[in-house]
Amino acid sequence: MKIHGEPTRSIWPLPDGSGVGTIDQARLPHRLATLELRDAAAVEQAIRSMQVRGAPLIGVAGAYGLAMALRAHADDAGLASAHQRLAETRPTAVNLRWALDRVRRRVAPLAPGERAAAAWDEAGRIADEDVAINHALGAHGARLLAERQRGLGRPERPLNVLTHCNAGWIATVDYGTALSAVYQAHDAGVPLHVWVDETRPRNQGLLTAWELAAHGVPYTLIADNAGGHLMQRGQVDMVIVGADRVTRHGDVCNKIGTYLKALAAHDNGVPFYAAVPSPTIDWQVRDALAEIPIEDRGGDELRRVGGLDAQGQPAQVAIAPPDTPAANPAFDVTPARLVTGIITERGIAAPSALAALFTQPAAAE
Amino acid sequence: MKIHGEPTRSIWPLPDGSGVGTIDQARLPHRLATLELRDAAAVEQAIRSMQVRGAPLIGVAGAYGLAMALRAHADDAGLASAHQRLAETRPTAVNLRWALDRVRRRVAPLAPGERAAAAWDEAGRIADEDVAINHALGAHGARLLAERQRGLGRPERPLNVLTHCNAGWIATVDYGTALSAVYQAHDAGVPLHVWVDETRPRNQGLLTAWELAAHGVPYTLIADNAGGHLMQRGQVDMVIVGADRVTRHGDVCNKIGTYLKALAAHDNGVPFYAAVPSPTIDWQVRDALAEIPIEDRGGDELRRVGGLDAQGQPAQVAIAPPDTPAANPAFDVTPARLVTGIITERGIAAPSALAALFTQPAAAE
Repeated sequence: MKIHGEPTRSIWPLPDGSGVGTIDQARLPHRLATLELRDAAAVEQAIRSMQVRGAPLIGVAGAYGLAMALRAHADDAGLASAHQRLAETRPTAVNLRWALDRVRRRVAPLAPGERAAAAWDEAGRIADEDVAINHALGAHGARLLAERQRGLGRPERPLNVLTHCNAGWIATVDYGTALSAVYQAHDAGVPLHVWVDETRPRNQGLLTAWELAAHGVPYTLIADNAGGHLMQRGQVDMVIVGADRVTRHGDVCNKIGTYLKALAAHDNGVPFYAAVPSPTIDWQVRDALAEIPIEDRGGDELRRVGGLDAQGQPAQVAIAPPDTPAANPAFDVTPARLVTGIITERGIAAPSALAALFTQPAAAE
Repeated sequence: MKIHGEPTRSIWPLPDGSGVGTIDQARLPHRLATLELRDAAAVEQAIRSMQVRGAPLIGVAGAYGLAMALRAHADDAGLASAHQRLAETRPTAVNLRWALDRVRRRVAPLAPGERAAAAWDEAGRIADEDVAINHALGAHGARLLAERQRGLGRPERPLNVLTHCNAGWIATVDYGTALSAVYQAHDAGVPLHVWVDETRPRNQGLLTAWELAAHGVPYTLIADNAGGHLMQRGQVDMVIVGADRVTRHGDVCNKIGTYLKALAAHDNGVPFYAAVPSPTIDWQVRDALAEIPIEDRGGDELRRVGGLDAQGQPAQVAIAPPDTPAANPAFDVTPARLVTGIITERGIAAPSALAALFTQPAAAE
């Protein structure tokens, strides 16, 4: 997508090949700053601190991190330990493990001296594929949005879409997942308005607001508490979220609070979709509630809030005393029974038909 | 309840009779400061700014405000206009209108010269009754909590109660509503732990945390997004909230986000209760969603967050640019079908049996 008119990806190889550049998402929406990550430890730290975030993006960042680790220690032990350290930085999202596994599979048969370069190339391929996949799934999603908007019966009435967290272009290499559909529908002239959940405690909704404002898509920021009320009042036509992991049965593991929105959508007859590239689908997990590890990110994310102070400088305020007991589960699981459909690069399927979408030959790709 | 060991109400007549003292709740939990309100305009301002908040408390504050207004303009026109101005400060809560109507009914037959004093006395009676009512409803609630805890089958296992917003003693004149039950159960030795929803955008959960910490009740602060996940994991045994208005059919209008928690409770078989003094029950409204006005408190409550800065001084940070479009509905309606019971001073009733509780003679009172 474009920043100040310049086409930009969220991650790119540095010109000298020493590492990757990326956007420091912990400073958004207040500052647009870039980070340069030149070794695996820097990648690990950037994922843990959420300077690099978004399931698809951390998959790509992890792949580059593994390539950088192999420059220092390319033997089997080095490969195994770097893979493990990187995988542990975000246990809930499946893309990271998927990308790390893919790089490992690619380089394991090679001589140690060839591994780092091959891993670097593989990371680049994963990045390019991410762009293509998210563009494709957004095209399917955009057709769905256009159809729903036509179904409203008034050509000028905007389709009200609610989204949670940030499933935009900065959460991927480009285009985004849920927002890829929104951008492509908007660009095709479909009247749209997006309700943006703030998404406490990390406020990733502010990233979504920043993206939508930059692209010119009408939106309104709301508290996470407000979506159910808006659905009761008929002010939401559709919910679209991204995901950190979707099971073969269509259970959706996504940012904490997604489940509450899915319940409200179900209670009010509002369609609920998750838009995910296929690397976000975990074909192994059977029981999402029992098997997917849910990261607890610690109480400080709740007790402290960052923003700009009266002088416009980045600052934090403590909203609760530092000894306040706090729990901070970062993800939840929305059961497939609450999900209308999964939007993928192969098309859109009901949860029960998701596996079939990927076992049949792709029609359009 | 006690502050630093001193029995304290949340509102009290000033010794010279010139007005009322109250806690400045906009400065909590960071500072415990008091406000002195000496005319109706000061009361109106304190309610609008949420320095005085909580449905039962604003009823009492409004009653005192009307008494103060009558000192200046005690004729019928003065009575009518003060009543109207005060009622408009918080359209959703029913206690305010109930208390204002009660004072008006009391003083309307009197000569203008007698009205202010009579109104002042009536406001005092409303305050005393609020204390008695909330103590009584808390006793019923505490018995319910004790019974549920016994039902867990392990004497030492704490009952996990989730609450939203602040339905504590500072939201009433004393004891609280939902928390009246919690305090009385805790004082009776029932092992309890409270999950405290942050309650964005005004973070009234921090008031609940402050109250519970002061009373020594174990609690954990959570994001509003987290409650559904905790219920899925069996970590919530019961939800108790207060309310701004409950209809005769048992629909519960309370702080925005309550509906989402009720949906999650219903989906996970967790009992959901609202604890309300009878002045919170609106016997007139038939269709809660259609008839109860929902206050929108403006976008700044979302865009700015207050706390303590690095020097420990009260400060705000802007989490979103000032031109960010934002919507801020402050209340929502939880349909009676999601409500297990209403806890009142007359006892506990299923929503469908609420009216019967108040048409039959009171047994215990």
